[in-house]
Amino acid sequence: MARNTNVKADHNAPAITQILAQFVVNHPSKGWSDAVDEQAHRTFANWMGCAIGASRHETIESALRAVMVLKPAPQATVLGRSEKVDIANAALLNGISSHTFDFDDTHLKTIIHPAGPVASAVYALGELLGSTGREMIDAMVLGIEVSCRVGNCMYPDHYDRGWHITGTTGMLGSAAACSRLLKLSVEQTQMALGIAASQPVGLREQFGTMTKPFHPGGAAKAGLMSALMAKEGFTASKRALEAPRGLIQVISDKCDWSEITEGLGERWEAALNTYKPFACGIVIHPSIDGCVQLRDQHGVKPEQIEKVLLKVHPLVIELTGKKTPQKGLEGKFSVYHSCAVGFLFGKAGEHEYSDEVVQSAEVIAIRDRVEAVIDENMDEAAADVTVITKDGKTHHVLVEHSIGSLERPMTNDQLKAKFMDQAGAVIGQAAAEEAWTKAMQFGR
Amino acid sequence: MARNTNVKADHNAPAITQILAQFVVNHPSKGWSDAVDEQAHRTFANWMGCAIGASRHETIESALRAVMVLKPAPQATVLGRSEKVDIANAALLNGISSHTFDFDDTHLKTIIHPAGPVASAVYALGELLGSTGREMIDAMVLGIEVSCRVGNCMYPDHYDRGWHITGTTGMLGSAAACSRLLKLSVEQTQMALGIAASQPVGLREQFGTMTKPFHPGGAAKAGLMSALMAKEGFTASKRALEAPRGLIQVISDKCDWSEITEGLGERWEAALNTYKPFACGIVIHPSIDGCVQLRDQHGVKPEQIEKVLLKVHPLVIELTGKKTPQKGLEGKFSVYHSCAVGFLFGKAGEHEYSDEVVQSAEVIAIRDRVEAVIDENMDEAAADVTVITKDGKTHHVLVEHSIGSLERPMTNDQLKAKFMDQAGAVIGQAAAEEAWTKAMQFGR
Repeated sequence: MARNTNVKADHNAPAITQILAQFVVNHPSKGWSDAVDEQAHRTFANWMGCAIGASRHETIESALRAVMVLKPAPQATVLGRSEKVDIANAALLNGISSHTFDFDDTHLKTIIHPAGPVASAVYALGELLGSTGREMIDAMVLGIEVSCRVGNCMYPDHYDRGWHITGTTGMLGSAAACSRLLKLSVEQTQMALGIAASQPVGLREQFGTMTKPFHPGGAAKAGLMSALMAKEGFTASKRALEAPRGLIQVISDKCDWSEITEGLGERWEAALNTYKPFACGIVIHPSIDGCVQLRDQHGVKPEQIEKVLLKVHPLVIELTGKKTPQKGLEGKFSVYHSCAVGFLFGKAGEHEYSDEVVQSAEVIAIRDRVEAVIDENMDEAAADVTVITKDGKTHHVLVEHSIGSLERPMTNDQLKAKFMDQAGAVIGQAAAEEAWTKAMQFGR
Repeated sequence: MARNTNVKADHNAPAITQILAQFVVNHPSKGWSDAVDEQAHRTFANWMGCAIGASRHETIESALRAVMVLKPAPQATVLGRSEKVDIANAALLNGISSHTFDFDDTHLKTIIHPAGPVASAVYALGELLGSTGREMIDAMVLGIEVSCRVGNCMYPDHYDRGWHITGTTGMLGSAAACSRLLKLSVEQTQMALGIAASQPVGLREQFGTMTKPFHPGGAAKAGLMSALMAKEGFTASKRALEAPRGLIQVISDKCDWSEITEGLGERWEAALNTYKPFACGIVIHPSIDGCVQLRDQHGVKPEQIEKVLLKVHPLVIELTGKKTPQKGLEGKFSVYHSCAVGFLFGKAGEHEYSDEVVQSAEVIAIRDRVEAVIDENMDEAAADVTVITKDGKTHHVLVEHSIGSLERPMTNDQLKAKFMDQAGAVIGQAAAEEAWTKAMQFGR
C-alpha cells in the first residue's frame, strides 16, 4: 500500500523556530516605539479588565472547582478572586476568564485574541518569579508578535479549516513570552516553542460553549509548561514549526513564511490590536455605534422613537438576525436588541446582554421598532442608521468605521470606562481604579 | 470576501460524541470475553513495566523538575520513583515514561500506542479515588476502545498529514476512561470528550526528541482534566468529534464513521493490542526479527557478513532511514543500526539503543554493511532479509509477521521477561516480581 504522504510538503521553509527564538531572546527591552508600548499597556489593561469582569461567571467557577481537585499550591493570583493556585492553573483560569464574555482584544488580520494566551501566562509566571512590570510587558509584546505572525502565516486557510486560531497560535506566544521571562537561551527557547508546537488548543465547533474560552486558557498553560520544561532540558524538534510535519504545515495549507520573517522586530503586530467596545460580535458594532451617536450627539430619546431603519452588510443579518431573543446570550446574536440597548443605555456591555435586560419590556419596546435591511453595497465595517421620531423628524448617521476599529480606536478614557464597568462590578470601584492605574503604568 | 470554507464538510455524521459517551457510561463491567480481559491485563502490565523501566531517564528527570516548580500536592505515584505529584501531573509523567523507550504497546491497525494516554490517566485518578482494580481495568478497556476506534476512523490520512496519532486520539481515550472512573453521566461524559477534543497532542516531526513521549503524557493529562471539568459542569459542543468543524473532520480528510459505530461493545480493539519485543518503532521489527532469525536459526555470525540486503515497505525508509545515527535515540530511527544489533546480540532492547552501543565500532562495522531498498509490494508487516557472507553464500528469510505481531504474539512468559528486564533494573527483582503479579491480577 503506497500512500501519497504530504505531497504538498515544503522542505525549504526558513528556520522559523530558530528565527523566532533568536528574536524573543535577543530583542532589547522596550525595543519599539512609545506608540507600540502604549498599545501594549492598553492590551494588558483590557485583558485584566475582561478577566476580572468574568471571574465569577459559572465558566470560571466550574473550571476552578476542577483545578481544586488537584490541591494546587497557592502560587499565583486568580484575577478577581481570593483563591490562589499554581502558576500553570492560574494561567489557565485567567486565560479562560479573559475570553468568557467574548469582550477581549482582537488582532483584526487574523481574528486572534492575542492577550488571553500570552498575558495570562506572563502574569502568572511573573508573579512567581517576581518579574518587573517592564519584563512582563516586554515578554507579552514578544509573545503576541510570535502568535500573530504565525497566525498571519496561516490565515485564512487555517481558520477556515475549523481551528480556533487564538488557541492554536497562542501556545506559541505563551511559550515565547515565558521563555523571555525565564531568561532562557536561544536553544532553550527553540525547544520551548517546539514543545508547545505539539499542543494546539481549539476548534471553532466549540463556539457558544465554555470550551471556547477554555482555548486561550489551555494555550496559556501549555506554553508556560513548555517553557518550564525547556528550561529543565526537555527537547523538541528544532524545526517544530516549519518542518513538513511541523505544526504550521500540518494545521494549514497556507504557509506564507514571509509573514513571519519580514520586518520582524521592526513592525509590530501588537500595535494593530483593537478592543471591543461592545460585548458582542464585531459585525454589529457599527450599528450599535450609530445608535449611540444618535442618542448622544443628536439627542434622540428612546421614548421619541417611532422607527429605526438600519442598512447593513448581508453578514449582519446572517449572523445576528435574531428578532426576538429570549436569553442574554441570544441577545448577542440580535442586531435588534443590540441597537435597542445602544439607544436606551448608550452602551452594550455584558450587563446589557443579561437575561434580565434582554427580557425587559422597556428594551423590547425599542427592539420591535428596529428594522434592518441588507444593502449589498455596504462595507462590512459600516452601517447606515436612520431614526424617525414620533414628531416626524428624521435623524441619520452613516458609520464608516465603528468605534473600536483600527481607524477609530477607543480612547484611553473609553477603555478605562470599559475596564471600570467590568472590574468595578466585581472588585469594587476603588480596587478597580487602582488595578487600572497599575496596569497602565506597568513597567513605564 | 467570500471564502470557500470546508467544502468537503460532512454535515450528516452520526452522533459520534454521544454514541461513545453512552457506550462508556453504560457498558457493563467486564462486558467482554475472558480473552479480551486477559489482553487488557497484558496491556496494563506491559504499560507499567515500560513506565518503571524509563522512570530514571533524563526525559523524566527533566519533566519532573519542571512539574516540581508547581509544588504539586503528593496525590499520586510517579511509577518507579519515590516522588508523588498531583494526579494530572502523575498522568503526564507516567504517560511520558511509558513511551520514553518506545517499547510500549501498539494497536497495529493505526500505530496507536493505546495504553500510554489511557492507563496513565486511569492509574493516577484511580489512586486518588481509591478505585478497585476491576474499575480501573474496565475504564482502561473502554478508553482504549474510544481512542482506537477514532484512530480507525481517521487512519491513515490523519497520520499521513503529520499527526502523532497516539496523542491526537489519546486525550479522548483518557477522557473516556476518567469519565468512567468518575461515574459521570452520559451528558457529562459527552462534555468530557468534547473538552478533550479541543486538545490533540502530537506531531510526527517530534520523533527522535523528548517531545515524542510527551505526547501520550500530555494526552493523558488533557483527558483527565477534561473529565474533572465535565464533572464540575464545564460545557463543550455535543458534536465536538463529528461536526464539520469538530475534531475528526478538522484533523483528517478520511472520516469513516462506521469504524466507530459498527460492532461497538461487541468486538474489541483492546483485544488487538500487541507488545514490542524490540525497543524501537514497530515498522522495523520485521527487519530485526529477520536478522535475529538468520543469526539464531541460520547460524550467521556477524564477522562473516559481507552485506545485508533488506527489502522493505516504503515507510521503513521514511521513518527509520538514518544511516549514521550518532546517539542512542537516533539509533531507534535507524533500520541499519537495528539490524546490526539484531545480528550481534540477538535482541534490540533499550540497552542496544544506548549511546555506547550506537557508537561502538563493532556495531558500526555491521551497520555499514546493511542496505535497504524499497519494495512497493512489500507489506508493512513484512520484511525480506538476505545476507551475503564473505564466503559468497546467501542466506535468506522472509518475515511475514514479526514476533510481537498479532499473528505471532509474545507469550506471557516473554512479556514477563520483558517486564522484569525493564522494571527489575530500576526497582529490584523482588519488587518487580510483585508488581508484575499485581498488574496481571488487577481486578480479577
